[in-house]
Amino acid sequence: MRLIVQKYGGTSVGTPERIRHVARRLIETQQSGCRVVAVISAMAGVTDNLIKLARETSPQPEEREFDALLATGEQAAIALIAMAVNALGGKAVSLTGAEAGILTDRAHTRAKIANISPKQIHELLADDYIVVVAGFQGQNPDGETTTLGRGGSDLTAIALAGALNADACQIFTDVDGVFTCDPRVVTDAQKLEEVAYDELLEMAGAGSKVMQSRAVEFAKKFGVEFEVRSSFKSDVGTTAKEETASMEDVVIRGISVDRNQAKVTVDDVRDEAGIAGRIFSVIASGNISVDMIVQSVSKHGTTDISFTIHENDLDSATQLLTPVVKEVQAAGLITKSGVAKLSVVGIGMRSHSGVAARLFDCLGKGGINIQLISTSEIKIAVVIDGQDADRAARLTHQEFGLAKFVTQKSPLTEEE
Amino acid sequence: MRLIVQKYGGTSVGTPERIRHVARRLIETQQSGCRVVAVISAMAGVTDNLIKLARETSPQPEEREFDALLATGEQAAIALIAMAVNALGGKAVSLTGAEAGILTDRAHTRAKIANISPKQIHELLADDYIVVVAGFQGQNPDGETTTLGRGGSDLTAIALAGALNADACQIFTDVDGVFTCDPRVVTDAQKLEEVAYDELLEMAGAGSKVMQSRAVEFAKKFGVEFEVRSSFKSDVGTTAKEETASMEDVVIRGISVDRNQAKVTVDDVRDEAGIAGRIFSVIASGNISVDMIVQSVSKHGTTDISFTIHENDLDSATQLLTPVVKEVQAAGLITKSGVAKLSVVGIGMRSHSGVAARLFDCLGKGGINIQLISTSEIKIAVVIDGQDADRAARLTHQEFGLAKFVTQKSPLTEEE
Repeated sequence: MRLIVQKYGGTSVGTPERIRHVARRLIETQQSGCRVVAVISAMAGVTDNLIKLARETSPQPEEREFDALLATGEQAAIALIAMAVNALGGKAVSLTGAEAGILTDRAHTRAKIANISPKQIHELLADDYIVVVAGFQGQNPDGETTTLGRGGSDLTAIALAGALNADACQIFTDVDGVFTCDPRVVTDAQKLEEVAYDELLEMAGAGSKVMQSRAVEFAKKFGVEFEVRSSFKSDVGTTAKEETASMEDVVIRGISVDRNQAKVTVDDVRDEAGIAGRIFSVIASGNISVDMIVQSVSKHGTTDISFTIHENDLDSATQLLTPVVKEVQAAGLITKSGVAKLSVVGIGMRSHSGVAARLFDCLGKGGINIQLISTSEIKIAVVIDGQDADRAARLTHQEFGLAKFVTQKSPLTEEE
Repeated sequence: MRLIVQKYGGTSVGTPERIRHVARRLIETQQSGCRVVAVISAMAGVTDNLIKLARETSPQPEEREFDALLATGEQAAIALIAMAVNALGGKAVSLTGAEAGILTDRAHTRAKIANISPKQIHELLADDYIVVVAGFQGQNPDGETTTLGRGGSDLTAIALAGALNADACQIFTDVDGVFTCDPRVVTDAQKLEEVAYDELLEMAGAGSKVMQSRAVEFAKKFGVEFEVRSSFKSDVGTTAKEETASMEDVVIRGISVDRNQAKVTVDDVRDEAGIAGRIFSVIASGNISVDMIVQSVSKHGTTDISFTIHENDLDSATQLLTPVVKEVQAAGLITKSGVAKLSVVGIGMRSHSGVAARLFDCLGKGGINIQLISTSEIKIAVVIDGQDADRAARLTHQEFGLAKFVTQKSPLTEEE
């Protein structure tokens, strides 16, 4: 019998009515001839409320207690889902992370899964139960509750699917799947049937909000295929998997746009060991995430170091860097907010040459100026003016033929 | 070093501010030279919300999942208390019922404590932690979360105090202690310094809302002394303990009034074996709690059977009993709502004769008609008209000298 792991996020279980809807899906899946494990997030809003209570109680809650507190959100949700399944005539049982055998390291609030002992899940599945597991949590070697950090419920689902050797892992969410581009920007964006782990990883890093990188990395490491699909529709979604030979036929899988970026350049700085380290350790001390880093070719012993950060961090980055600029005797600090990052992603780049040239040419013809370029093996990212972002996405989407309209005329229409 | 168990109810931890207040108390208690175990209920309102969610999700939630759901309320509260203690410079750690070693039987929603393994608590206390334990919950032999039913947090505190051989157990609540009578009815009601377990049990059964009978029974069985006192004041409360010889000097310890009662009489029924059983099994089938039961002396082979129930149950009791009255060929069913039960309680009754006569005489002089009488070894309860209840309480309170005013004139006032 097929074994399927289904994960439902907080929006999917946000009200008693939606809880019943999920319960109905779980029962239907079981009735279609599957053994079913459900991974459930806290009801939408619950985790935020708990965080608010914690902040009101303590300026800096210790992580052990913070985990114990947050874990209750998922624990309430699984009990409600199990009740709903049973109320609809199904047979379900809820398990906390610890009960499900999810063992983690000791790093509270960002624990890593160390091992999964799925004995109890197997026994319950053998007794025809739908097993409802709390996402986002586990137990450390001291028996304390831990949480897995952002995107933790996706990680729970993928790790369980791996440990149970599941035939399928479905991530139910409020989007229909992974698209060639954001459909709000590019109206003819297409839902992808499949995507390679590496592509999804690059997209996640490039502003696509579908999945957290950590869950995808775990899936890649253990080769767990999973499908991202909508909680509210019954359409097939997008399957993330190991890359296959045929995947390379497609040059570009998708385009991501990351807005509200700022560009910072340390101008004309000595090209010496340790200077880049000095700059970025100062930035890190301000808890600022740096994205693209580009260093230009050294001329006359000096170079420029540019990088992008989120706009909101620009003021504090400027404050932090101003003394450093003096210290390392650079010519100055040049900053620019309101820029955007456009990334084109595809494992097909490895076997198709000229992708970068085609991208730059396309943007150039559109009169869009490229301010920074950074590339990885399967991604080309460019920084452009924020006002050009939408148009750049549409031009690129067309250039790489991502809107492959399959003209499916209804036979009925043709005959009448 | 003294070991003290303190229990705080839902109202005492109802807001972040109150949580900090409790945290301060715990730290002060530790600083006074005690090892401290705190037992905490869910924040006021949280359990009701969870019950509401459960009812909206399932018409009849199965008890295992209901327990898993409700237990999250206390689990969130203990994490918040521990955070608050730590934020104030103290050192606390939270433990769920399972982590605290509270093992129960398998009876979900009304589990009995089977055993307590306080190893972890002892270790944490030895490391100077304030140990914050979730009330109302435990773990059954299958490792599932159970809840202990109404008054469960009091029970947790008393059972832990017993298992840890604590020097004191304090039940912090929103009343100042146990009173000779409800101070809202009898303005000169006195807070009792001490009360025997049996007296408190009779009071609990007689409408006093201070403690659930179950927790008191447990304390009596294992000889755990405990003090009921206010969360919001620092006054000493009332200590419940084994009766002592000196306790018997007081004839009556307290007076309880139970309002909104109804009286039901099955009139002129054959005095035969099985008929009372028939009547009360029908009442039980409607899930109606019966309080006093009085059967009059048999005359000409017939008798009357009277009992009291809550007013709200009168309609369904009448419906259930009407066919039975015909079936057993009784003369009829006489019902009366709006009655009250007045109970006088005291272990002194055992050694003082004439208490009943004194009570009846006192009520008679006040023109208060007694409709039913029922006695136990240390309690006399009478059913009277609801409108007479307050006056009856005041007359009785005076008759038995419960308002022993200690006229404490300030020496300062006298000298000036």
